Amino acid sequence: MDELIAGVEDAFRAYELGNAQMPAKSYVDLRKYNGDFRSMPAYLETEDWDAAAIKWVNVHPDNPEKFDLPTVMGTVIYSDPETAYPLALIDGTVLTKKRTGAAAGVATDYLAVEDASSMGIVGAGIQAYTQLEAVATVRDIEEVVVSDVDDEAVQAFIDHFEDRFDVRGGSVSEAASCDVLSTVTPVREPIVSAADVGEHTHINAMGADAEGKQELADDLMQDATIVIDDYEQCTHSGEINVPFHEGVIDDADIYGEIGEIVAGNKPGREGIDGVTVFDSTGLAIQDVAAAHVVYEHATEEGIGTDFDLLGV
Amino acid sequence: MDELIAGVEDAFRAYELGNAQMPAKSYVDLRKYNGDFRSMPAYLETEDWDAAAIKWVNVHPDNPEKFDLPTVMGTVIYSDPETAYPLALIDGTVLTKKRTGAAAGVATDYLAVEDASSMGIVGAGIQAYTQLEAVATVRDIEEVVVSDVDDEAVQAFIDHFEDRFDVRGGSVSEAASCDVLSTVTPVREPIVSAADVGEHTHINAMGADAEGKQELADDLMQDATIVIDDYEQCTHSGEINVPFHEGVIDDADIYGEIGEIVAGNKPGREGIDGVTVFDSTGLAIQDVAAAHVVYEHATEEGIGTDFDLLGV
Repeated sequence: MDELIAGVEDAFRAYELGNAQMPAKSYVDLRKYNGDFRSMPAYLETEDWDAAAIKWVNVHPDNPEKFDLPTVMGTVIYSDPETAYPLALIDGTVLTKKRTGAAAGVATDYLAVEDASSMGIVGAGIQAYTQLEAVATVRDIEEVVVSDVDDEAVQAFIDHFEDRFDVRGGSVSEAASCDVLSTVTPVREPIVSAADVGEHTHINAMGADAEGKQELADDLMQDATIVIDDYEQCTHSGEINVPFHEGVIDDADIYGEIGEIVAGNKPGREGIDGVTVFDSTGLAIQDVAAAHVVYEHATEEGIGTDFDLLGV
Repeated sequence: MDELIAGVEDAFRAYELGNAQMPAKSYVDLRKYNGDFRSMPAYLETEDWDAAAIKWVNVHPDNPEKFDLPTVMGTVIYSDPETAYPLALIDGTVLTKKRTGAAAGVATDYLAVEDASSMGIVGAGIQAYTQLEAVATVRDIEEVVVSDVDDEAVQAFIDHFEDRFDVRGGSVSEAASCDVLSTVTPVREPIVSAADVGEHTHINAMGADAEGKQELADDLMQDATIVIDDYEQCTHSGEINVPFHEGVIDDADIYGEIGEIVAGNKPGREGIDGVTVFDSTGLAIQDVAAAHVVYEHATEEGIGTDFDLLGV
């Protein structure tokens, strides 16, 4: 996870510096199956490495109930940009979880208070796990409060992490008052308001991924310093999309993109008081960076299955 | 090849009937490496089957000389549209050659004279082989004339096919005067003119794949019945792109899309006299159709390598 966080940090920096290419996601809508496919190609170049990949990913909400399959699955083709030779095919489902966690890790590193030791998580689903793993990589987290309407999900989360953290279930307010909060829910109506959070809580708002979705209340957004991953994606389908389109917040309320902070063009927490919000929609360059890290590890350690797909 | 041709025919029909989705290709330009990546997602639904796939393909012209790799390589992810589960990863390099041949096969079936027995091929490169294989599937081809400035390429082609056809090298005119002609060259200036072709030659113009490329002379295009695969792609980068943008031909000179003919909305050869030209740029739905055929064959015959990529 520490290398994934460094890789995603590199990706945010490359994007800010104009050293990344990320065509708009293209969608194939499958109304017949209540689902869609998204293709996410990207290339990025850092001081030390460059990489190209495409993620072919879907959202099929009926999958768990009808087919015992995840709602979201992904497949990544990781290619050598110099020759375009496909170097690896990677499970994009796990990769997405990890790179999403890593993005929260980067944002937390730049935006949470230095001595943050408590973390709240609202939403104990599959994305919750990498949130804690990533945040605990950049801050010495000791105390964890997890909140979910599903008691079994809360218990599973506790069981998973109780050896490493002082972790317990709690209310949304108890979770939200921690030094760091990650919200990873599919809600459409806000569940965390200004009264819930601490004075200097940093919030990773990971859940909103479509128009009309929103986890944080307007009063919270109006008071917080808002950092986004990408203007187009966030105003379209990120945490800010609803308040932005309702005029509750506007461009002047957006502090900047995470890449600007990572690249040193805007200060992080050292220049910010109070509550911070990172609106993460997930960028194709995060997948490329994560694929790069995975591929390097896999080749170094002989992990994976060799096969000659192209016969060239 | 007969099943591939039927599959690609289904795809053209589905596209015409509005039963296909094919977002615009998106490009990642790699000037540093003189190359690019293209992502080509698509979905199509026929009466009997539906299928979704994405092809991640590149054009790196320096590959053969510098790296002993093909200029164009492709990787295809073939997915179940109902759940989005990735069913197969397929070599997109071979698939592209085959589906490109199959498109010429479909066009030849609808546009060549019924008793066509001779075929000319201008350009003896790797795409030439599937042209003959496909055309010979839909017409009883006996005599083949192949023309190329590279004598070795001509000889290799003859060696490959001499057991099956009366095949010989010849001039462009000798090739072009056959009943069916496929042009599969990378030229930027026309090499076949009206004087070269026969009275009822059907031409598969496969080579032009970028702005400024053109294989057939203006006088030929002005006299011929022009059928295209897709209006946007052909006017942008197909055989017609140069004469179209220079005003040599206009919308009125385009007879129709191949899908209109396949779907029965416009007559094929039975309603057309003289020379016909099929401008093929290559559509993502052809890849999907070809992937479908390959996958069905592979699963029926136990071909391929099983592995559990996603672990779900």
